[in-house]
Amino acid sequence: MSHTRTCLQLCFLLVFLSYTVQRVNGVWPLPQQTEESAERYTLSPQLFSFTYGTDSAVKVGCSVLDAAFKRYFSIIFPDFADASEPHPVWSQFKGFGVSVSVKSSGCDGYPDEDSDESYKLSVSEGQALLRSVSVWGALRGLESLSQLVYQDDYGSYFINKTQIVDFPRFAYRGLLLDTSRHYLPLHAILKTLDAMSYSKFNVFHWHIVDDPSFPYQSRSFPDLSNKGAFHPFTHIYTQTDIRRVIEHSRMRGIRVVPEFDSPGHTQSWGKGQPDLLTPCYKGDVPSGSFGPVNPTLDSTYNFMGRLFKEVKSVFPDSYVHIGGDEVSFSCWMSNPNVGAFMKKMGFGKDYTKLESFYMENIMNMTATLNKTSIVWQDVFDYHERIPQDTILEIWKGTTAQYQAEMSRMTKAGHRVVLSAPWYINHISYGQDWRYSYAIQPQNFTGTEEQKKLVIGGEVAMWGEYVDATNLTPRLWPRACAAAERLWSDEAKTLNTDLAFPRLVDFRCKLLRRGIQAEPLFVGYCRHEYNGL
Amino acid sequence: MSHTRTCLQLCFLLVFLSYTVQRVNGVWPLPQQTEESAERYTLSPQLFSFTYGTDSAVKVGCSVLDAAFKRYFSIIFPDFADASEPHPVWSQFKGFGVSVSVKSSGCDGYPDEDSDESYKLSVSEGQALLRSVSVWGALRGLESLSQLVYQDDYGSYFINKTQIVDFPRFAYRGLLLDTSRHYLPLHAILKTLDAMSYSKFNVFHWHIVDDPSFPYQSRSFPDLSNKGAFHPFTHIYTQTDIRRVIEHSRMRGIRVVPEFDSPGHTQSWGKGQPDLLTPCYKGDVPSGSFGPVNPTLDSTYNFMGRLFKEVKSVFPDSYVHIGGDEVSFSCWMSNPNVGAFMKKMGFGKDYTKLESFYMENIMNMTATLNKTSIVWQDVFDYHERIPQDTILEIWKGTTAQYQAEMSRMTKAGHRVVLSAPWYINHISYGQDWRYSYAIQPQNFTGTEEQKKLVIGGEVAMWGEYVDATNLTPRLWPRACAAAERLWSDEAKTLNTDLAFPRLVDFRCKLLRRGIQAEPLFVGYCRHEYNGL
Repeated sequence: MSHTRTCLQLCFLLVFLSYTVQRVNGVWPLPQQTEESAERYTLSPQLFSFTYGTDSAVKVGCSVLDAAFKRYFSIIFPDFADASEPHPVWSQFKGFGVSVSVKSSGCDGYPDEDSDESYKLSVSEGQALLRSVSVWGALRGLESLSQLVYQDDYGSYFINKTQIVDFPRFAYRGLLLDTSRHYLPLHAILKTLDAMSYSKFNVFHWHIVDDPSFPYQSRSFPDLSNKGAFHPFTHIYTQTDIRRVIEHSRMRGIRVVPEFDSPGHTQSWGKGQPDLLTPCYKGDVPSGSFGPVNPTLDSTYNFMGRLFKEVKSVFPDSYVHIGGDEVSFSCWMSNPNVGAFMKKMGFGKDYTKLESFYMENIMNMTATLNKTSIVWQDVFDYHERIPQDTILEIWKGTTAQYQAEMSRMTKAGHRVVLSAPWYINHISYGQDWRYSYAIQPQNFTGTEEQKKLVIGGEVAMWGEYVDATNLTPRLWPRACAAAERLWSDEAKTLNTDLAFPRLVDFRCKLLRRGIQAEPLFVGYCRHEYNGL
Repeated sequence: MSHTRTCLQLCFLLVFLSYTVQRVNGVWPLPQQTEESAERYTLSPQLFSFTYGTDSAVKVGCSVLDAAFKRYFSIIFPDFADASEPHPVWSQFKGFGVSVSVKSSGCDGYPDEDSDESYKLSVSEGQALLRSVSVWGALRGLESLSQLVYQDDYGSYFINKTQIVDFPRFAYRGLLLDTSRHYLPLHAILKTLDAMSYSKFNVFHWHIVDDPSFPYQSRSFPDLSNKGAFHPFTHIYTQTDIRRVIEHSRMRGIRVVPEFDSPGHTQSWGKGQPDLLTPCYKGDVPSGSFGPVNPTLDSTYNFMGRLFKEVKSVFPDSYVHIGGDEVSFSCWMSNPNVGAFMKKMGFGKDYTKLESFYMENIMNMTATLNKTSIVWQDVFDYHERIPQDTILEIWKGTTAQYQAEMSRMTKAGHRVVLSAPWYINHISYGQDWRYSYAIQPQNFTGTEEQKKLVIGGEVAMWGEYVDATNLTPRLWPRACAAAERLWSDEAKTLNTDLAFPRLVDFRCKLLRRGIQAEPLFVGYCRHEYNGL
């Protein structure tokens, strides 16, 4: 009565293999270079330490790493935290010290596009040496280290002699959450950030507002959430909430790139900001409904200027996403004042010119604020002469279509983030992570210089059908496929059958860390999900 | 950047409507007859009571209803249980009493195929009168009553003047869980039973064992789970666990129909029961792998006889599901002893005869034990002359195919359970509940007598990609669509657009009751999911 017999028997074998070997290649996403030996060392929680190397530019007191040591101790020794009795210190165990040396000083800043996330990890008898240029690289190395530790059937902890040299393939490895179509409570966002760090994602693209609701509580314009959120108290993000998200992210080397999408996708904005949206007309009279932001009024640009000034003060990242997608012209076309403005500006009947006019104004604002703009591909599609430092995010089309788009965009000298094939809110039956895994982001017609303009990719979890009830099992482990594509050497990671047992193993690790990650196929984990 | 603009705007309106009206038609699945008035009464938790009617055949001490009163009080007044302060008894509130009268005595039995689930509910000033033939009908009425209560923006509780006459369209309204492909912890099963009762499902089809694992801990054959479960302690159901599931179900008027599927789907059985499975051959020698149960040995039937005798003693329901699906003949064909047996029995080269021979033996066993057998459609497909009281479950084919199958089966006089269109483990993007809702189980060529042989339907949640991490949001509210089809008047419930706001409302009720039900579309509930 269950359809998948052939696949079942085939894949079952694979799952089985993954449980019979003591452990599968430890680290997801796969490091650039790993040498592992069969030689293994026992670890004891009582005789385990994290220390800063004597040559390290950062020392005790480094906020990012002090907190990471505490966090990773519990991740590496999950039973230890559970145990209520004191553990005996057995003399046959030798100590094991993890020495972390960071070349550059700086623990209180934020990760950014130029952050160096490379690290080297050398595990030998009694010690692990972790070297990195920045604290962000040290975080990546600690994550890898934590995944190398495993337990045998008696509960003893082991780590094998290992050498890792690692760095990310792409600087931008993003994940988008949509908190407008459904509100996501703070703890769901924080939990997602935890899981992101386990897969070495480094950008949280926060699509914070959209048509259905405006949960961002603005200092300058409190009515935006008072009137535009699903509920003005229970369904908003206060400034404190946002600071917490940003700090939680920082601690994990994750950037927070907020999106304030306009001129479309702004229905909820209109509730709290009079005259912002274009009144649509039916014949000669306003119909009572509203369209995109009204690009013809000075008040619009005053408002947007103040809003983005606030955004700059709240979100430290150098990028800001300003949207620009899916602007419907029908309302603008219905409105006589917009028509008069078009005429005055000499736009003729070409509403893309009006849209470009609007977006240029917004891009000038963000440039003045020293922010790099990211926009959805639509902005490039209707107007090729946009500032060259604008980053373009590709979200639509078949493989052939987005590859052609990447050719055009990079030829025009723009940096590109690829998201189209990673809209993983689109679910289907079975192992759809295999599609995400097979994507080759630099596979398009172009020069080497063009390929370098691909700064990364982004998994998107749009919220039409997603809220806190199903977010986590839909995201994990499905998002891990893109995480490996964006971090690892593509030549070593194109075979999904080889990836499968490693991902099964990593998914069990996610469960062990309290992430409600759904199963990839028939089987079990030693420590199943215990929530509910 | 999110694709569903048209649908978004359309459906958004619908969602919106459902939030602006004070309340949507209260009860899911829709009762057969409802008359509701705008007249409403305030309810106070302090002045609310459940009592047995003076003419009721069951009284205080009735296990099923005493427990239900306690349960439904907390469901009706969710804030009351939360409050830490004592509530003042305000004198302006009048009392409200729910009087329950059951015609037939009996509180300690189990629901079965003949249970009368009908009820009448009359809500008027100060009281609700609930009348039913059996305690099972009273449970259905209490569920409806609980869904009629709503809160206004100030938190006050109300119920409208209402008359309901209700009964189920089909006697068998099942939900299948698969605990072999992934183990489901006990609390996940109990939670599912809770949610089932909210949608008036009444059969838990427990597909307890299969190829991947054998979590049923048998008294007679403990090695089946010792060796065949994923883990002999953490991934099994003890006899105590099973009693708890059965009692939890009984309290909610839900039958537990266990499935011990054979001769295929038994790989895990072979681990703990030597000589049960057929050794496959490669040329003249055993290959080391095993096929279906060996139908040629007396020891097989001795074992199956003892196992089903135990099953009878453990599971009180009059039905037992004995599987019979997807038997692969290749292993039997490879084995020379099976070949010799075929010859001796005069089966020629027709292995369906061997399969029929085996299934007849099993059906004879269950008949001797006074159990009604349910089998998957395969058994009918290869062998039309099976005992006429055998119930056939349809699991495959397109709409046209399963309709033709229903024609043939009912023409042969068999009772039928339809599951094929309700394999809701098969997920897809968007509002796929609409497909489940549109199914018309009696829409096939046949006489009225034939239509009556359709005893119901079953939602199946197979476990290839499902465990405790994602079970609940995949099941709910998607399963509710089939629940309404199986309970309600089809003529009144075919329009999915009309059903949509009611289901949105019901899904919020499920959240309020702690069921992690996923969203149907953009929007929010006053009380969102609070777990995680």
